Amino acid sequence: MKLVIAIVHDEDAKRLLEELTEHQFRVTKLSTTGGFLKAGNTTMLVGVENEEVEKVKELINENCKSRKELLTAPAPVSGTTGVFIPHPVEVTVGGATVFVVDVDEYHKY
Amino acid sequence: MKLVIAIVHDEDAKRLLEELTEHQFRVTKLSTTGGFLKAGNTTMLVGVENEEVEKVKELINENCKSRKELLTAPAPVSGTTGVFIPHPVEVTVGGATVFVVDVDEYHKY
Amino acid sequence: MKLVIAIVHDEDAKRLLEELTEHQFRVTKLSTTGGFLKAGNTTMLVGVENEEVEKVKELINENCKSRKELLTAPAPVSGTTGVFIPHPVEVTVGGATVFVVDVDEYHKY
Ligand code: NI
Ligand code: NI
Ligand code: NI
Repeated sequence: MKLVIAIVHDEDAKRLLEELTEHQFRVTKLSTTGGFLKAGNTTMLVGVENEEVEKVKELINENCKSRKELLTAPAPVSGTTGVFIPHPVEVTVGGATVFVVDVDEYHKY
Repeated sequence: MKLVIAIVHDEDAKRLLEELTEHQFRVTKLSTTGGFLKAGNTTMLVGVENEEVEKVKELINENCKSRKELLTAPAPVSGTTGVFIPHPVEVTVGGATVFVVDVDEYHKY
Repeated sequence: MKLVIAIVHDEDAKRLLEELTEHQFRVTKLSTTGGFLKAGNTTMLVGVENEEVEKVKELINENCKSRKELLTAPAPVSGTTGVFIPHPVEVTVGGATVFVVDVDEYHKY
């Protein structure tokens, strides 16, 4: 039996959780960094049989892979005299860190 | 040496922490999900000798076992013309997920 | 490969994170206890080669060791008739708990 420790960005956490659950994995969601009003990471613990580790890694890769996105800055609040052309900025979002650890015992009470 | 990773409901966390401490276990309390104003889970790490794992599991089972409780809904705030009879609702509370992992080293600084 | 799980006090977390990063370790910062307005612990996961465990432990010891500090209480807000001499109080700050666990796999997505 293995414990998969996955640290994923908050924005990908909901989707990954849904996917893992849909595939019958039992996920324990830990907490997020940052706390009140601040985005951060979600840590998930997944206890799986040895032969299921590959599937979990595949789902993490599909749903949390680090990728580029175009972010268009919102128009400034205060008025400007000229014409404002917002420039889309390329940002990196998502990404996951995964540790797989051998587990002696797994219990639900 | 083993690391017991216990994820318990917030409502059971205080009692379990007291019991583990009373039985001389050194517990490291991680954080809770949900954060501000939201109930969640508390993660505890307990570093123990191999022969103590059973005792820790016993204490978790005693203090955090998933169980049914009757919850009586509070009376409604706004007035009603008829007689209000609150129906107790059966809810599941508590429950714990436990992983036991082999530990190479344990240090306190 | 090893996973170093370090639980350090919030006040030492920033410095340790800087030191570990400076020494090329890849640190995953989990979350803090307490949450909103309450100080607590920061948990760091560091995936390292076996021969690097000693260096990580050394950096944790240097930056997070439990130590005594003199805390001078601030002057009282309301006026007093006599002379106020603040007494410095010795408090224990810092300290870290470290678990080293064997890791099967480590991935970045
Ligand atoms: Ni799917
Ligand atoms: Ni007892
Ligand atoms: Ni240095």
